[in-house]
Amino acid sequence: MVDPTNRVIYRATPKGAGKVALISGGGSGHEPLHGGFVGLGMLDAACAGEVFTSPTPDQMLEATTAVDRGAGVLHIVKNYTGDVLNFEMAAELAAANGIEVATVVVNDDVAVEDSTWTAGRRGVGLTVLLEKIVGAAAEEGRDLAAITALAEKVNAGGRSMGVALTSCTVPAAGKPTFDLPEDQMEVGVGIHGEPGRTRVALEPAARIAERLVTPILEDAPFADGPAIVMLNGLGGTPMIELYLMYGEVAKLLEQAGVQVARVLVGNYITSLDMQGCSLTVLKADEELLGLWDAPVSTPGLRWGI
Amino acid sequence: MVDPTNRVIYRATPKGAGKVALISGGGSGHEPLHGGFVGLGMLDAACAGEVFTSPTPDQMLEATTAVDRGAGVLHIVKNYTGDVLNFEMAAELAAANGIEVATVVVNDDVAVEDSTWTAGRRGVGLTVLLEKIVGAAAEEGRDLAAITALAEKVNAGGRSMGVALTSCTVPAAGKPTFDLPEDQMEVGVGIHGEPGRTRVALEPAARIAERLVTPILEDAPFADGPAIVMLNGLGGTPMIELYLMYGEVAKLLEQAGVQVARVLVGNYITSLDMQGCSLTVLKADEELLGLWDAPVSTPGLRWGI
Repeated sequence: MVDPTNRVIYRATPKGAGKVALISGGGSGHEPLHGGFVGLGMLDAACAGEVFTSPTPDQMLEATTAVDRGAGVLHIVKNYTGDVLNFEMAAELAAANGIEVATVVVNDDVAVEDSTWTAGRRGVGLTVLLEKIVGAAAEEGRDLAAITALAEKVNAGGRSMGVALTSCTVPAAGKPTFDLPEDQMEVGVGIHGEPGRTRVALEPAARIAERLVTPILEDAPFADGPAIVMLNGLGGTPMIELYLMYGEVAKLLEQAGVQVARVLVGNYITSLDMQGCSLTVLKADEELLGLWDAPVSTPGLRWGI
Repeated sequence: MVDPTNRVIYRATPKGAGKVALISGGGSGHEPLHGGFVGLGMLDAACAGEVFTSPTPDQMLEATTAVDRGAGVLHIVKNYTGDVLNFEMAAELAAANGIEVATVVVNDDVAVEDSTWTAGRRGVGLTVLLEKIVGAAAEEGRDLAAITALAEKVNAGGRSMGVALTSCTVPAAGKPTFDLPEDQMEVGVGIHGEPGRTRVALEPAARIAERLVTPILEDAPFADGPAIVMLNGLGGTPMIELYLMYGEVAKLLEQAGVQVARVLVGNYITSLDMQGCSLTVLKADEELLGLWDAPVSTPGLRWGI
């Protein structure tokens, strides 16, 4: 259900009373994130900003108030300064109205410390996995403290890294956000086209896969074991290339002793029409796998129903 | 499970004895079709050809022989001359080996009668819906005659139409398949970039939606009622644009009295990196909706499991 005035997307059927509600939101251009992840087993509402621009505290307050079922609301925030400040203000306003709000700030991108729009690490692909896992826990009826702790556990255990072959074009600007020669790629790119770690000549897929896997495993708080893995397209990448890249990534993860327990390959958090991909690896245990497998029914992610 | 020698993708766990098996295949570059639709509730095997090139009869015979569980095999063939001839030969070879084979040729594209690579209409997006629906019937244990009749029913009741904003680039060629100026689009494009009905200047999304919906409804054997609808990205289309286009399409279908009973929006049958989309509308009744909702677990389509 869409509230076009406030630009908030809600579930068609609200959650039952006494359950924690989840909202997220951010700039548009990353579809299906976040609006496409509203539904049973994931978000209760998503606030859509202009393209690559944070929604306003008013939108977030509206959504928070509408979805609260008396058990509090978790704000899932990707670590960009605008989003963080606006969600903070919305949380304060909601608290003043007597709604209990907790916040998790996702910051999984290993590419860079600080960036164009961020203090600290950027929040990218892990947001998808977090919304799924925490959404399942909220359906189970866990309380806000438990759900917040779970969200922090997911954030602590997941890492992402991306690479762009082209820029994206913000419609209002009408020209590519950054210049990237046809024969080069941006390693460690952000989901708005923010610069990454390095710009290098195009390489074979196996080498690009190394550029994604190695920094994640170097940084991750785990060296091996089961993991939930997402190989995500940035919007303009052909599916044949995503499958091919996943094949290369899977080989490297196996060599490193990481067991792919669950996998997603497709467009889940995009950057408009950008060509490229990102890899997210989340250390998984029985709890996270159980929540991952729980039913979900959203436009962007659906199973078990 | 991949057989790299024969380039055939099989289910990890073969179907039980006595059930009809389904195979499909075609040129690569349309992922997730067909390899991504192998799994419980859809295909038993998929044969991958070179990019935009039919697989060989040998591959198809290998797959047919491997998946037969004693109840026969249905070949799901998109209507392109190469695919049709090769599947025909494979079916004859399999029959000579005592395997019962039936064939359905999908030809849902209303854009053009005959085309670059086709006698008669091209087979496009409806193939995805057919593989899902017929796959569910095969899991139920229906016999080959019933499954073939069901496949014909789906093919008779579904229509598709596509539009391209850019060409695609076959890797081996290294340059765009066709020239399409930046300010023009190809209406009625095929999934290999075959010419469509007309080339026109770019238009607003609402007008493009009309160019998809109108020819489908003019041609369809139904004027209104429930339908299964797929708004499919051709590979390079940003998700935000697919969602926007679906919004326009949904308005027009509603105005026409077509009730969207089920919907898919995303990349399901692609043309490498082509920007654009296709619309598929399948008249639905209780039988088709029940089979649609049945569990499916493949890389490209999953629910109920």
